[in-house]
Amino acid sequence: MCQLLGMNANTPTDVMFSFTGLAMRAQEHKDGFGIAFFEDRGVRLFVDPHSARASPVAELVKRYPIKSGNVIAHIRKATQGRVALENTHPFMRELWGRYWVFAHNGDLKQFHPRLHAAFRPVGDTDSERALCWLMQELAKAHAAVPSIAELTRTLAELLPQPAAHGAFNLLLSNGQALWAHASTRLHWLQRRHPFAHARLADEDLTVDFATLTTPHDRVAVVATEPLTTGEDWQPMAAGELRVFVHGAPL
Amino acid sequence: MCQLLGMNANTPTDVMFSFTGLAMRAQEHKDGFGIAFFEDRGVRLFVDPHSARASPVAELVKRYPIKSGNVIAHIRKATQGRVALENTHPFMRELWGRYWVFAHNGDLKQFHPRLHAAFRPVGDTDSERALCWLMQELAKAHAAVPSIAELTRTLAELLPQPAAHGAFNLLLSNGQALWAHASTRLHWLQRRHPFAHARLADEDLTVDFATLTTPHDRVAVVATEPLTTGEDWQPMAAGELRVFVHGAPL
Repeated sequence: MCQLLGMNANTPTDVMFSFTGLAMRAQEHKDGFGIAFFEDRGVRLFVDPHSARASPVAELVKRYPIKSGNVIAHIRKATQGRVALENTHPFMRELWGRYWVFAHNGDLKQFHPRLHAAFRPVGDTDSERALCWLMQELAKAHAAVPSIAELTRTLAELLPQPAAHGAFNLLLSNGQALWAHASTRLHWLQRRHPFAHARLADEDLTVDFATLTTPHDRVAVVATEPLTTGEDWQPMAAGELRVFVHGAPL
Repeated sequence: MCQLLGMNANTPTDVMFSFTGLAMRAQEHKDGFGIAFFEDRGVRLFVDPHSARASPVAELVKRYPIKSGNVIAHIRKATQGRVALENTHPFMRELWGRYWVFAHNGDLKQFHPRLHAAFRPVGDTDSERALCWLMQELAKAHAAVPSIAELTRTLAELLPQPAAHGAFNLLLSNGQALWAHASTRLHWLQRRHPFAHARLADEDLTVDFATLTTPHDRVAVVATEPLTTGEDWQPMAAGELRVFVHGAPL
């Protein structure tokens, strides 16, 4: 199993604290890591088929405060697909003039949908296959980028199909919203005024968000397991789809 | 005008030396930089809308020896499209289950082809528009990834159309080959046994390739302007298309 981290904020926010927590879990999840940062429509995508504990790219991400409205990160323990750069999450495609970033935790058995359109996997993971199928089906359902509410309805119709093949915890973003779908294991929380202290669950590191934020700031964080102690992480139910916009659940 | 750097090698090779030379030219080309490294089918794409002289991402690239068979780098001086992450080269799309990376130097006037297929620009540069059109036309010309020779013939038919709209110096790679098209300014050289010393044209830095290579190694480098002194850079003619495979021109 891999671990996911997603962030959606109303003010561009860095994820150095949360990513440090995630990277601590990379001992068991040593088969690569990746993180994508949206800045408006643009994306910075860092992927490395090495452990986030050892990678110089992970070191850069921990030290360089990239401020973003939507972030998706993933640390990988290979189940399907060998350890290779092209099998490292998150995966990215362009649809309707927007980049789409996708990361998946779980294992889809016998999921080989017909891919007859413009989206083909480059690597050989079940996850990238699922993204290509999702992009193909979204492109069929809407001629141009629809509203977030419409997209969410279409996703709610589509996601049960791959989810019938196994665990399908996923994060998806197009820079406007962050979608989270739980199948077996995903938690979320919202940070907003009044901000509190948080302590990383895996490392002796605390942060006082009150000193780093303004009362207007709102941030939603989604992660496989709660990353901090002293915060109110909500577990997601099996089959639950949530969408976060401007740091709040819609 | 921007500056391009491309590398194609028969053995995964780092471009720290050449990229250092390119980054020195970033004073005038301060509107962003990007570099893409193929590792087999996978790609690491680093983009930053800040100058390559100041960016921590550029610092990482200069220090971390990422070994790659195909590299495309670009430093930007904005002509069309504002300074933003989504307008930073290289641009990437997936076609036929392969990533395609593209960077462009020049300025296409009034190039607004009909984009009726699955490839749409995310930003607002003439360059990304040209890539989307190229992908669309390649997808129409071939049902699956053709041989490099066939692809080169199709590109030779297609490239004059955008090139009729202005300067169209470009680098394109799918991880199997590096294509270079010159319109106004592009140079290339091949490094192979017996390897010599090279000195960066812009910085007091020399490298003795003989100590870093084996007699079997072959590397082709393409750049807007020669990056080194003491090496045999060949200018490309207007309208010339070259393809490099395993470190040699085909």
